[in-house]
Amino acid sequence: MADNNVVYIGNKPVMNYVLAVVKEFNNGAKEVTVKARGRAISRAVDAVEVSKNRFVTDTIINNIKIGTEKMVSENGESNVSIIEIVMAKSPT
Amino acid sequence: MADNNVVYIGNKPVMNYVLAVVKEFNNGAKEVTVKARGRAISRAVDAVEVSKNRFVTDTIINNIKIGTEKMVSENGESNVSIIEIVMAKSPT
Repeated sequence: MADNNVVYIGNKPVMNYVLAVVKEFNNGAKEVTVKARGRAISRAVDAVEVSKNRFVTDTIINNIKIGTEKMVSENGESNVSIIEIVMAKSPT
Repeated sequence: MADNNVVYIGNKPVMNYVLAVVKEFNNGAKEVTVKARGRAISRAVDAVEVSKNRFVTDTIINNIKIGTEKMVSENGESNVSIIEIVMAKSPT
């Protein structure tokens, strides 16, 4: 099982992503990375918090990174903020 | 000048908060903490990224914390996600 399991946060309800995170851990992942950009960033934090507090309570937040990415759309180039939150099984 | 300067992110345009962050650093702050909850979390990340990339380019992100807070409203109690991003003058 690869340890770089990634859950990308989009516009669906938070619980969809919580389920995806829980599933990864249940499948044996030691680490799950939750990634989002733009407005979905708030939802990413929600998904991590709900997962950690209610479902996979034996996990910790290992790392949080924020950054900026260039996005090319019909209206030209624009910057969008991104977040990456790494959850991991707590080492006990 | 206290080193625990805090900028709270609300529903105003991102640039309002960028200005607040820049002002703190220009007033001599060594550290500025940007705090937000709920949907404003995405805007907090935007404000930090825009500040760091365009205005106070001699800063780094020192720490990012996420968490959950209980909120009491007319409709009873609910949980809300929070974020705290600590920006600091880079130690060069």
